[in-house]
Amino acid sequence: MAVRGELEWIAQLRRSAPRTGGALRLGIGDDCAVLRPPAGHDVLVTTDFSLDGVHFRRDWHPAHSAGHRCLARGLSDLAAMGARPMAAFLSLALPRGLRKTAAGRRWVDGFLAGLLTLAERTGTPLAGGDTATAPGEQVLADIVLLGSAPRGTELRRSGARAGDGIYVTGALGGAAAELEMLSHRPSRFRTAVADGTHPHLFPVPRLAVGSQLRRRGLATACIDLSDGLATDLQHLCKESGVGALVDADMFPHHPLLQRQSPEQAHTMALRGGEDYELLFTAARTARVPKRIAGVPVTRVGVITFGSGVLIDQASVRKEQQAKLREALQGGGWEHDL
Amino acid sequence: MAVRGELEWIAQLRRSAPRTGGALRLGIGDDCAVLRPPAGHDVLVTTDFSLDGVHFRRDWHPAHSAGHRCLARGLSDLAAMGARPMAAFLSLALPRGLRKTAAGRRWVDGFLAGLLTLAERTGTPLAGGDTATAPGEQVLADIVLLGSAPRGTELRRSGARAGDGIYVTGALGGAAAELEMLSHRPSRFRTAVADGTHPHLFPVPRLAVGSQLRRRGLATACIDLSDGLATDLQHLCKESGVGALVDADMFPHHPLLQRQSPEQAHTMALRGGEDYELLFTAARTARVPKRIAGVPVTRVGVITFGSGVLIDQASVRKEQQAKLREALQGGGWEHDL
Repeated sequence: MAVRGELEWIAQLRRSAPRTGGALRLGIGDDCAVLRPPAGHDVLVTTDFSLDGVHFRRDWHPAHSAGHRCLARGLSDLAAMGARPMAAFLSLALPRGLRKTAAGRRWVDGFLAGLLTLAERTGTPLAGGDTATAPGEQVLADIVLLGSAPRGTELRRSGARAGDGIYVTGALGGAAAELEMLSHRPSRFRTAVADGTHPHLFPVPRLAVGSQLRRRGLATACIDLSDGLATDLQHLCKESGVGALVDADMFPHHPLLQRQSPEQAHTMALRGGEDYELLFTAARTARVPKRIAGVPVTRVGVITFGSGVLIDQASVRKEQQAKLREALQGGGWEHDL
Repeated sequence: MAVRGELEWIAQLRRSAPRTGGALRLGIGDDCAVLRPPAGHDVLVTTDFSLDGVHFRRDWHPAHSAGHRCLARGLSDLAAMGARPMAAFLSLALPRGLRKTAAGRRWVDGFLAGLLTLAERTGTPLAGGDTATAPGEQVLADIVLLGSAPRGTELRRSGARAGDGIYVTGALGGAAAELEMLSHRPSRFRTAVADGTHPHLFPVPRLAVGSQLRRRGLATACIDLSDGLATDLQHLCKESGVGALVDADMFPHHPLLQRQSPEQAHTMALRGGEDYELLFTAARTARVPKRIAGVPVTRVGVITFGSGVLIDQASVRKEQQAKLREALQGGGWEHDL
């Protein structure tokens, strides 16, 4: 099979991508794409790297998963602000030799298929981007998402107030748990598909939840869980000028955490990251339903005055108290409880 | 000096970047940036890689130049469609060790300063992006530009018709000539600045020209010269479904080409690339001024029926005819004239 040149590769992308439709007035093939947002809407923009060896590993992640995750990262940012996707732009640099091997071409085709499947499922046309030869041996991708939301209605990180409840969608820690399994036996995941049971390989951006939160005016602030609850809640608190108290016993643990030790499960739910669930705050008086757009919603804490995030956990408190009793009886004390 | 962490680095970017203003409703610090295009305007989007070892070399290009060129590539795409910049987004991945050395930090600061200087000069707020640790030893940048143009007025590649004149702005081949000089003695260019005399290191995106072409309805089609006149004219012809005949003797040669042989000067003007001038077509009856927004405009050819780009050059024709006479007199014939 002949080596595909850059032009053929762009032509392939172009065939996969709609030329116009929805907000897209002009797609791949000119100096810029042209978009027309719905009347009275603002434009939301987010960009995210997906770098081989940093955000995914070609020896671990099936190509479909790498492509899906690349787009999902950006869609999740749109979801967190309650925006609807308008278009995606993919900048993709491939190592020089990659498309010279059948396996390499399969990888690239799989990556694109994974990305385009999620794009179609979420109504996100691929409207352009850039291609280049990568300077090293790693695949380098950067995804840009444009979305729209009615003027001034987008969900921000900065609106949380003391007394607001803190909520998360779906389940926590599943991505970290699946990543650990992947690292031990990548071959087991070769044929995994985006069926909603792979929190790490095929995360589901919460677009419908974000959109409903915005439309119903339920959330005072919102952020997506990309870095882990502990870190992302800190971001939200910093932007809002508030503190937070969360109870780790209330965290909705992902079923995959059942295979972990309690300590490990706690850490994965709190700090695992890449769950791409939404974390939002709502006024004390708001009636937050148990499910939004079919996704479970769980209250995990409360916004406080001051700053910083305190993690409370009754089970740890009990353990500490038991150890304290033992220590007092035995005359010793472990400082690092 | 302490190693700067990712958060400090984002904070640095954030301090350099405006939070709001113009079309920018919300800048760095949330899941997405929020833009409000002027009423009745479409949104134009372009993304361009700037990869160390592919688009620039850290051992050749001064950091300011690499940053300037990164933004200039995207601005030139907006110029080619007659759009006005609304915001830029920078995704930047740095090798792990780079910010641990004083020289590395200077490079990153210089890169950002070069980019932000051009951003300020062109009224383009830096509104977000992404940061990451690069998987290899190369700096990886991807720039996204959003612009606006009144609905349906953008200049496209696809409007050229047989009989239209073909025009270029500024001068050709300067970027290729300066790149050659840079490759021989990079140290000579360490202190170069963006004063308009460095076609490769500090190209000037033709935003004002593009904008005037659009407003005056002068151009039937337009493209920016990033890959070289020969290639970019082919792109324009393909999108318009036409052919072209250009006369290389009419090319406005950049003064730096005077140091080159005639053959080399011809090649650099025709195929050099990265001049970031505009190539546009105008109806036969249009009165195209000699200067637009202070930039010289030169007619170089005509759009034809059919397809493909023919390069004509009287000086070469004369040479060919002389050789043909010699050959006929001598009985031989060189095929590769």
